[in-house]
Amino acid sequence: METRLASAARELMISSDKQTTLIGERINPTGKKKLAEALQKGEYDEIVRREAREQVDAGADVLDVNVGAGGVDEIAVLPEVVKIVMDEVDVPLCIDSGNPHAIEAALKVYKGKPLINSVKGEEQSLQTVLPLVKEYGAAVIALPLDQNGIPNNADDRIKLVDRIVERCVKTGIPIEDIVIDCLALSVGVDYHAGLVTLETIKRVKENYGVNMTLGASNISFSLPGREAVNDAFLSIAMAAGVTCPVVNVAKARKCVLSTDLILGRDKYALRYIKYYRQNKEQF
Amino acid sequence: METRLASAARELMISSDKQTTLIGERINPTGKKKLAEALQKGEYDEIVRREAREQVDAGADVLDVNVGAGGVDEIAVLPEVVKIVMDEVDVPLCIDSGNPHAIEAALKVYKGKPLINSVKGEEQSLQTVLPLVKEYGAAVIALPLDQNGIPNNADDRIKLVDRIVERCVKTGIPIEDIVIDCLALSVGVDYHAGLVTLETIKRVKENYGVNMTLGASNISFSLPGREAVNDAFLSIAMAAGVTCPVVNVAKARKCVLSTDLILGRDKYALRYIKYYRQNKEQF
Repeated sequence: METRLASAARELMISSDKQTTLIGERINPTGKKKLAEALQKGEYDEIVRREAREQVDAGADVLDVNVGAGGVDEIAVLPEVVKIVMDEVDVPLCIDSGNPHAIEAALKVYKGKPLINSVKGEEQSLQTVLPLVKEYGAAVIALPLDQNGIPNNADDRIKLVDRIVERCVKTGIPIEDIVIDCLALSVGVDYHAGLVTLETIKRVKENYGVNMTLGASNISFSLPGREAVNDAFLSIAMAAGVTCPVVNVAKARKCVLSTDLILGRDKYALRYIKYYRQNKEQF
Repeated sequence: METRLASAARELMISSDKQTTLIGERINPTGKKKLAEALQKGEYDEIVRREAREQVDAGADVLDVNVGAGGVDEIAVLPEVVKIVMDEVDVPLCIDSGNPHAIEAALKVYKGKPLINSVKGEEQSLQTVLPLVKEYGAAVIALPLDQNGIPNNADDRIKLVDRIVERCVKTGIPIEDIVIDCLALSVGVDYHAGLVTLETIKRVKENYGVNMTLGASNISFSLPGREAVNDAFLSIAMAAGVTCPVVNVAKARKCVLSTDLILGRDKYALRYIKYYRQNKEQF
């Protein structure tokens, strides 16, 4: 199944037949003090441009844009940051906010077909986000969680996926515009966490065949030596069906290109060898 | 399903419920000039002891022992090398030779329950190797290849697996003593190679549920930056059902421990964190 996204000038197709789509995670103040402060002070033009440019240079296909930090008026700031990113780079954006009004404000200025991050399984989210997805012809990331949190088992996550998909279809959103994030939690906290996510991914692939994203680095939260754990998880998740992970592109790209090579998405290994030649210091 | 192996004093169970079993690959002269020369000259005691000790210290659970090099009389040398390794370390061995007489000579001196590497799908191999497996109560690695080579598709590999399993059962070898190697070929040569191996692994797991090994590093033959490709493949193959890969233990262990952690085989991440603390330079 193909999910089409677009910037002002370019189209992007997400599909398991193609190379993996990388969604850059770094325009997000969570855990990033400098960016948070810049957003709070209203002096974010330079840092946003730099983060956007660096991620695209590192191989990001889509950029996630999130401005959620204490003291930041998302409704005012999110569309401004979206405009800056569109001005700096030409890739589709993922408009990321828990505030539907901020999402709508950003949709009003966005040129192209964005991904909205995200809709949850609870009524309030379904009722406020899905009409926006429909009205603006966007694609949407669906999270199998609700007011009770993230289920700790695949059965309950799948029930929430079913509920969200059903509501999307009722709202008139095509199935190919739904991208599921099966949600990763730390294996340092619960050693079943990886298996639950992988089982959910497997069933979403079987049941719907839609594109899937994943914030893979959550898997290693609280652990030392995080990159090795993130890489192992990302490879397995991609083999199971994740087609557009949200990642730190500069760190994850080697693993993603290796995995695409394993999964038959890199004829003659041309992309892998090119990356190797340009980034020998990483090998 | 559990495959039991044993050295003189210790038992080892291979199973998907347990941590992954690492079979150390380094006592093998293929591509290793020094070891080949030592075997040819008959002066191998020191190098064999060192390779055995280093691999076990690095975390090898089983050691593969192969002496196949031009000018080496395997029937005479293989049992001698097996005796040296048994004297130096206390782990089960994998007796590795294309010559059934050399395998038998090694079985005669081996103490415990070894793994025999390997039986192929062709008559000559089935007829000579399986009676030895039965007589000595060993376990055996089965390779889905025959006189025509390695099939380039999962269907034909599965047919060969079926043939070997059927013959093992007829010979009175219990199914749990069969370990399948679904065979990895280079994705640098054929970009479908990884998918064929993974599909074969998936079907062997569904059809038989037996333990599986894999010489994972073949996947990157002829490519630069091999470790990243090997690691991605190893993680995916382990998630698909490989329980006892043949690896360069010092290089592969970080990936294997990360993957075991993802797959719920490392409660509280204790093994991973211990490894991290002892090998920080690798992270």
